Formats: sequence, C-alpha cells, structure tokens
Amino acid sequence: MADQYARDGVDDSPRMLPVLRWEEPPDGAVVVLLDQTRLPADEVELVCTDVPALVRAIQSLAVRGAPLLGITGAYGVALAAARGYDVEESAGLLERARPTAVNLGYGVRRALDAYRAAAGRGEAEAAAAALMAAKELHRQDAEASARMAAHGLAFLDGLFPGGGHRVLTHCNTGALVSGGEGTAFAVALSAHRAGRLRRLWVDETRPLLQGARLTAYEAARNGLPYTLLTDNAAGSLFAAGEVDAVLIGADRIAADGAVANKVGSYPLAVLAKYHRVPFVVVAPTTTIDPGTPDGASIVVEQRSADEVTELAAPVLVSAAGQDGPSFGGRRTAPLGTQAYNPAFDVTPPELVTAIVTEEGVLSPVTREGVTEVCAKARRVVSG
Amino acid sequence: MADQYARDGVDDSPRMLPVLRWEEPPDGAVVVLLDQTRLPADEVELVCTDVPALVRAIQSLAVRGAPLLGITGAYGVALAAARGYDVEESAGLLERARPTAVNLGYGVRRALDAYRAAAGRGEAEAAAAALMAAKELHRQDAEASARMAAHGLAFLDGLFPGGGHRVLTHCNTGALVSGGEGTAFAVALSAHRAGRLRRLWVDETRPLLQGARLTAYEAARNGLPYTLLTDNAAGSLFAAGEVDAVLIGADRIAADGAVANKVGSYPLAVLAKYHRVPFVVVAPTTTIDPGTPDGASIVVEQRSADEVTELAAPVLVSAAGQDGPSFGGRRTAPLGTQAYNPAFDVTPPELVTAIVTEEGVLSPVTREGVTEVCAKARRVVSG
Repeated sequence: MADQYARDGVDDSPRMLPVLRWEEPPDGAVVVLLDQTRLPADEVELVCTDVPALVRAIQSLAVRGAPLLGITGAYGVALAAARGYDVEESAGLLERARPTAVNLGYGVRRALDAYRAAAGRGEAEAAAAALMAAKELHRQDAEASARMAAHGLAFLDGLFPGGGHRVLTHCNTGALVSGGEGTAFAVALSAHRAGRLRRLWVDETRPLLQGARLTAYEAARNGLPYTLLTDNAAGSLFAAGEVDAVLIGADRIAADGAVANKVGSYPLAVLAKYHRVPFVVVAPTTTIDPGTPDGASIVVEQRSADEVTELAAPVLVSAAGQDGPSFGGRRTAPLGTQAYNPAFDVTPPELVTAIVTEEGVLSPVTREGVTEVCAKARRVVSG
Repeated sequence: MADQYARDGVDDSPRMLPVLRWEEPPDGAVVVLLDQTRLPADEVELVCTDVPALVRAIQSLAVRGAPLLGITGAYGVALAAARGYDVEESAGLLERARPTAVNLGYGVRRALDAYRAAAGRGEAEAAAAALMAAKELHRQDAEASARMAAHGLAFLDGLFPGGGHRVLTHCNTGALVSGGEGTAFAVALSAHRAGRLRRLWVDETRPLLQGARLTAYEAARNGLPYTLLTDNAAGSLFAAGEVDAVLIGADRIAADGAVANKVGSYPLAVLAKYHRVPFVVVAPTTTIDPGTPDGASIVVEQRSADEVTELAAPVLVSAAGQDGPSFGGRRTAPLGTQAYNPAFDVTPPELVTAIVTEEGVLSPVTREGVTEVCAKARRVVSG
C-alpha cells in the first residue's frame, strides 16, 4: 500500500508505548499507529497518510480498544482536513469502519463538530480546530486513565494497607486500548511504580490470547513482576491464597452495575466470591450505558467456531476485503466440531466488589450508585 | 524403526476404538496401539513387535492414561514371553518407562507373577499364563468401565428423571485411557445410548487440549451431540442454565475424598457449587490412595512454561531420548515470560457431589465412605 507503510524500530522507552501519535513531517501530516496484530513478536509502526489507510488499520485490528478507537476516529477527521480531503466523506468512512464500537463514532463526531464550527474561518482554521479536538480527546482519555489508576490504587491500599498486592487480571486493558495507560492494567502499573505490586497474574485469555500476547508484552515493557497462566489455572492460585484482588476492565456496564467483559471474567468473579477476594472493575464512565437496564439485556456477541477448533496466534491479513484475524492455524478438533464461542460474559452486580471510574470508586455496586456516577460525569462534561 | 511400524486404516466401528489389542499373525505376536499423539488428524496404529518399541510408545505418549498403561505393561510382559526375550529384563524396562504411573508397575507385576508361577511347566505354559493375566486385567478394566457407566447413569437419572441430560466434561476420560469405555466419558456415552444425553459440553482443556483433540474425537466417533468450548466459556453455560451436571475423572483420590484431576477441574467445582449443579467424579477404586490422608497432601506436578508461552497442538517426537510432547509452536508471549503451569488441581470433598466407582455411588463424600469403598473393593479383589 502506498499510503500505509511499516517502519521498524519504535521508541523503546519502557514507560509508554507509542500506540498512536500525530506527526507533521515536511510532506504532510500522518497518524502513526503501533501495529497490534504483530505484537509481541514484532514492534512495527503503521504510518497512515490518509483515511482509507486508517480505516484498514481499524478493520484489521491493528488499532483496537474502545477508547483508543475514539481517539483514532478524531485524528482521522483531522488528517482528512489537514491533507485537504473531503472531510464529511472521510468522517462517514471512519464512522462505518467498525459499526459496533460506540467510541469510534463519538470521536469522529467530536472532531467533525469542531471542524464545522470553524469552517467559516477558512480551511486552515477548520483543520486546526479538528486537530485540537482530537488532541483534547486524547488528553482527556489519558487523564481519565491516570485518575482511574490513582483511585484504583488508593482502593487497593485501603483493602491491603501492607502493600505487596498480588493482582490477577484477564484480557488486555493497558496502554494498547487507551490514550493513556489503560484501565485495570493502569492500576497494576501504578501499584508497581509505588513499589506495592508483588505479582501480576496474567490470564492467557483464550481464544484470542490477549493476555499472553498483549498484557504480557505491556507488563514486560514496564518491568512488572508478572506470571502468565492458562485461564483454568486461576482456580489453583485462588485456592493457594495467591490472589489478593482481581482487576478487570469492562466492555459495557449496565444501569444496575452488571458488567459485560471478555469471556472468562464471570468465572473469575465466582472464584473471587468463593475465596472472599475483591473483584474490581476499572472502566471510564463512558463505558456505562444507562440505556441498558441490567445484565440480562446485554447482547453477547457469538464468534466463529474456528477460534476454538483451530489453534494459532491470530495472524492478521491486511489485504483488502479481510477485516478480521485469520486463523491459519492447525486444526486441533475433529472436522465438523461445533463450538460455543461467546466473546463476552456478564457478571451480576452482586459479584462486583467495586467499579473504579475516573470519578472515583463505587462500592458497593448499586443501581442508585451507578446513576449517581453517570450524573457526576455529565456535570463534568457539561461544566 | 524396524520393530514398530505404522499401519493405516483402522477399524472404523463407531462404537469402540481399537486403542490396544493383542494379535498373533504368522510371524509372531504383536501389540497393536492406536497412536494417540496423531489424533484427531490421523488414525494410525503402531504395531509393536518387542518391548523396546512398547517402551517408546509409552514414553512418547502414543499410549497414555493410567488404567491403559497398566494393561499395556501386562501385555508387554506377555509379548516378551511369547517372543522368547528375557522376561525379567523386559519387565524392568516396562516398569521404568514412566515411573510416575502406578498402574504400569501393577500391570507388569501381575503378568510377571503369573509367568513366574507357571515357569516350572515350561516356557510355552509360562508365556500363556502371562498372556492370560494380561487379558484378565484388560477384561476387568473393561468391566469396571461398564459398571461405572451404569452406576453413573443411574445416579444422573435419579437426579433428573426426565432425561435430556446436559453434561459438561473436562480433559479426556474415554476409551483412550481405559481397557473399556473409560470413566466420566463412559457415563455420558451410556446416557447417549439410552437416548438420554441432550448435550455433551467439552472443555478444550488448555494447555494440552485433551478435550479438543481427544474427547471431541471420541464424541464424534460415537455420534454424541457435543459442543467444544474454551475452558473459560464454561461460566457462561452455567449462568445460562445449560449445564445439568459436571462429570470428570480423577488422577488420585485422597482418603478424605479430595480429588486431584486435570487443572481446571476445581474452578468447575466452584462454578457448579455456585449454580447448584452436581459435580460428579467417576473413577475406579484403584484411583483411591488411602495413603494420602487429604487434599493438602497431594503433590501437584508443575510442568514446563513452554506449554503456556507457546501455542501449538502437541507434536510428539519419538526419537530416542525424547519422552514428552514437543511444542515446536509459535511463541505467543514475550521472550522470558514466566508461566504458572500446574498439571492438576485439587477439589476438596465438600465440593464433590458424588464419587462413582465400579462399586457404586458414594454421596455425600466422607472419609468414612471412602474407607468403606476401599474395603469393599479389597473384598472383591481378594474374594
């Protein structure tokens, strides 16, 4: 592809991964993305010089994670404006790249609104306004990460004043899904920097192995003491008293506090309850959906059987027309084997010890509490 | 290898897999094994004409599963005798092939004792006696399977008189580990034949995928209605009310009824308890170890990190000196990643609804009950 090329040798700062950045080299503005499909084997950046390239990166999962998708969408609008492409058309392309990611449309509209508002002052002013909106969203998301990390660590420290936290996590919730340092992972990272993380237990997270591939990668880059395990070995850790708290992210939180998250979260919640271990959800207030009354109303995506019946690290095919991981792996189950492969599961509020947002810690988790958090977040946005 | 060759095209009876059999073609006796390392992709038999070939098959896991290893050891002694090799030396080689498998030594000694007792009547008589002992052990193990299946199904039918059982299982517990039709799987198979199995949910069983590779294979061959899932998707099935009972096998049962079994069994027991679903262990009385007082006394084998940090279906290397699976797979986690990889976990008796043996059903599971089952089994053996 002429408009999207790979560049080796990324910044090797151990602290912060260059997951997405805006650059303005002499030949025009670009959006530079860390290609997440090639992690952890290769750290390669994708340089996107136009919106179709960015759309391909979104569709191929080179860039993923709800908050980060919102930021990508906003920069995409700014990129179209900076390079003189049709901004309205580009915004539509971006918004439709992955229709299920609510944040994507939000980010696109936020930059587009800024562009339109400044259109009367000329093309350059409007482009600058779109870029400013994207940078503002990026900054706010990073700030929300930092606030969740601080609230989450204070909560952990309150539960275990001695420090030496041993935290179990599932899926990937770090800098790779966020404009900042993430959600649940950011809390663990913050504990590590404060010298209070004894161990991060990383579930591999079958079938797509976000834990083994991405969380282990972020933990290694940041020097965390971490250990990988198969999802079904978590029970042995609980039984041995090796887990002080479970920290996970969320894909959607219903109005009653039920939490939809990567499949495997619910069994951890049940194990945590049985062993009296706190089960803590870390997510920005934008993840709360007041329009979903309860856990039973959350529709869970069922994914392809191949992810279960074949075994391979996901290999992304970036050719046009392919928009998901290809499992060109070794078939492990007999031909014709049916698989049950829900992408998410739902944890009821009674199993959730606390929900940590940028607004603070909600514990216990009640419908009234969730309503209050939403109201607080709206006041901040409108204020 | 001159003395161990592959033969394609095994008996395709849907009922019974030819996992191990004794044959006497004109050029001498052989032990024929289904090569389990190549399932489910290839159904290939290994024809072993001498004891070193059999030892290689045991070490490469071409033949596996405690009861089946005992039977293999006994036939090995009979093979050495039939072919005029040094029987005492061969018995020693077999017994040391996998020192941790108690049943292997038991089977070897049983055939060796019979050989020695008949030695005074000449070589041919002694060889016939060893073969008879091996066949007797094989027959007894098949019979124990059948009795466990009948007791287990009666127990299920008692719990759910309407039939239509939806059973969740973990790891591989069928004909591939037994002289008969297995333990937990045999109960499901028996329910299927009686028209009372609505669904067999098959956990893939990371890291070695015995569920995806072997249980799915046995389920497919026997025409069972089965569905494969990642281990961490079981929670969603429980939450949806899709599991009537969990049926698993056991690697060792302590005197108090604590059950050591493939890692991932304990989380299922906790989920089952939380959802009030019966958790049923099916194992022959030879699995009960009265010398192990309780679950805490069971030493759990920790296995190699590669099984977790790399991803591949196990590929067995049968070259001399190699005695385990090789994971020539794709590394999924960053270099240097530590892994926690216990092979088994321990379920305390209070989470076990019932233990089904060939002697009947023990429910509730108590130390006194376990002692009684052992005494009953000893009376049968000595009577």
